[in-house]
Amino acid sequence: MTPWAAHVLTLYPEMFPGPLGVSLAGKALGEGRWSLETVNIRTFSDNRYQSVDDTPAGGGAGMVMRADILAAALDSVPRQGRRVIYPTPRGVPLTQSLVRALAEEPGVILLCGRFEGVDQRLIEARGLDEVSLGDFVLSGGEIAALALLDATVRLLPGVLGAPESLAEESFENGLLEYPQYTRPIEFEGLTIPDVLMSGHHARIKAWRHAQSVQLTQHRRPDLWDAYQTRLAVRPPQTH
Amino acid sequence: MTPWAAHVLTLYPEMFPGPLGVSLAGKALGEGRWSLETVNIRTFSDNRYQSVDDTPAGGGAGMVMRADILAAALDSVPRQGRRVIYPTPRGVPLTQSLVRALAEEPGVILLCGRFEGVDQRLIEARGLDEVSLGDFVLSGGEIAALALLDATVRLLPGVLGAPESLAEESFENGLLEYPQYTRPIEFEGLTIPDVLMSGHHARIKAWRHAQSVQLTQHRRPDLWDAYQTRLAVRPPQTH
Repeated sequence: MTPWAAHVLTLYPEMFPGPLGVSLAGKALGEGRWSLETVNIRTFSDNRYQSVDDTPAGGGAGMVMRADILAAALDSVPRQGRRVIYPTPRGVPLTQSLVRALAEEPGVILLCGRFEGVDQRLIEARGLDEVSLGDFVLSGGEIAALALLDATVRLLPGVLGAPESLAEESFENGLLEYPQYTRPIEFEGLTIPDVLMSGHHARIKAWRHAQSVQLTQHRRPDLWDAYQTRLAVRPPQTH
Repeated sequence: MTPWAAHVLTLYPEMFPGPLGVSLAGKALGEGRWSLETVNIRTFSDNRYQSVDDTPAGGGAGMVMRADILAAALDSVPRQGRRVIYPTPRGVPLTQSLVRALAEEPGVILLCGRFEGVDQRLIEARGLDEVSLGDFVLSGGEIAALALLDATVRLLPGVLGAPESLAEESFENGLLEYPQYTRPIEFEGLTIPDVLMSGHHARIKAWRHAQSVQLTQHRRPDLWDAYQTRLAVRPPQTH
C-alpha cells in the first residue's frame, strides 16, 4: 500500500521534518506509514536574485509571493488526488473533522506562505484550500503545516498505540475532555475525586460526562451550542 | 534590558528551537531579542524507569502525566512574573489579542503535555492557563508551543522589518485580510483588478475594506458578528 503522502512547498525546507521527525510522527515516518517531501520554492525563481516575491499591487507594506513562481513550484509535484492546502489566517478554521477527512485521503500538499501572503490569482487558478490554524498570525505557514501534519498523522492506521483513546478525547464527541487524575492519591493536600476511586464504572462515566458538559458550557459556549443542535437533530431512537 | 524569556517544559527538548531557530524568530533569537530554554520533564522522574506518567484514576485508555513530577519540573524554573501556559484542546482559544498581551509580558513558561494530558490538580495548584490552538488534537503540546512562540516573538520590538505591516493584517482590525496581487500583471489570463492599478489611494482603500468585509461575512460569520458588535458600542464621534 502507498503510504499517506505529504508534500510541503516552502522557503524553509530545513524546518522539516523538525518536530515531526521524533516521537509518534517520527516513528510512523520511519516505519513508512507516511512520507514527507519538501520542495524549495526558491529553486523556481526566475531571476538571479532568487527572489520569489514582489511589492503589492495598489501599494502597502511587505511583499507578496508571485503567482507564476508558486504555480511552477506547485506544478512540479504530482497532485495524485490530494488537496492543496494554503495555511493562512484568512482560511476556514482547521477542525478535527477536516483532520479526519485528510487522514482518509491519499495525502496532502501544503503551500507555506511568507511575507504578506500569496497572489490571489494562484489561489483561484490552482483551487487552493485556505485553512486557518486559529485567529492569530504566524510568521509563515510552516508551523501551521507542522500542526496539520501532526494532527493528521496520529490518525493514520497503526500510528497510535491505543486507538481506543481517540474515542474519548476532546472534539471526538463534540465536548471538551473531562479532567484527568492519576497517582499519587494525594498531591499537596489535594485528593483525587472519590467517584474515580469507587470502581463504579457507570458513576464514573456519568461524572466524566457531567464534567465535560460543565467545562464546555463555561469555556466554549460556541461548542456547547453546536453540541445541543446536533443532539436535537438526531432521531430519538439513536440516543 | 532583559530579553523576552521563554521556558519550555517538555519530554522532547530536541524539538526546540526547531523551526524557531531559522528565519524571523531564529534571527531574533540570535540577536538576543528573546531567549529560549528547555527543561526536560523526564529528569524530574522519581523512578528508575524515568517514567513521568501513570494510569488514569477511574480507568480509561492512555496515561496521565503526574502532578508531583510536573510540579517539581515547574518549580525548578524561576517564575519571574510569567504566565504558565498549558496547551490543550480543552483550553481557551489562542487569539491575536492574547498573543499581543504575551508580547508585553516578561516572557512565558510553556508546559507541553503528552498522552492523555496532565493531572488536574497540577493545573489548579500552579494556576496554569489552559490555551487551545484550535479545535483539533495534536500528539503533544510541543507544536502548539512553537506556534504560540512564533506568533508572539514576531511582535517583539525590532523583530519585524516593517512594523507598519502589522496594522494591515488579519485580526488587527477584526476582519480577514483583503486579497493581495503582485507582478506579473497577467497570470494565465488572469489580471490584477483595475482599481489596484489606478494609483487612486482612497479607492484602493475602499476596495480593500469591501473585500475584507465580504470575505469575513462569507467565511467567518462569527468574526463578522464580533466586528459589528464592537463598532456598535463605540461612541459615534470615534467612527
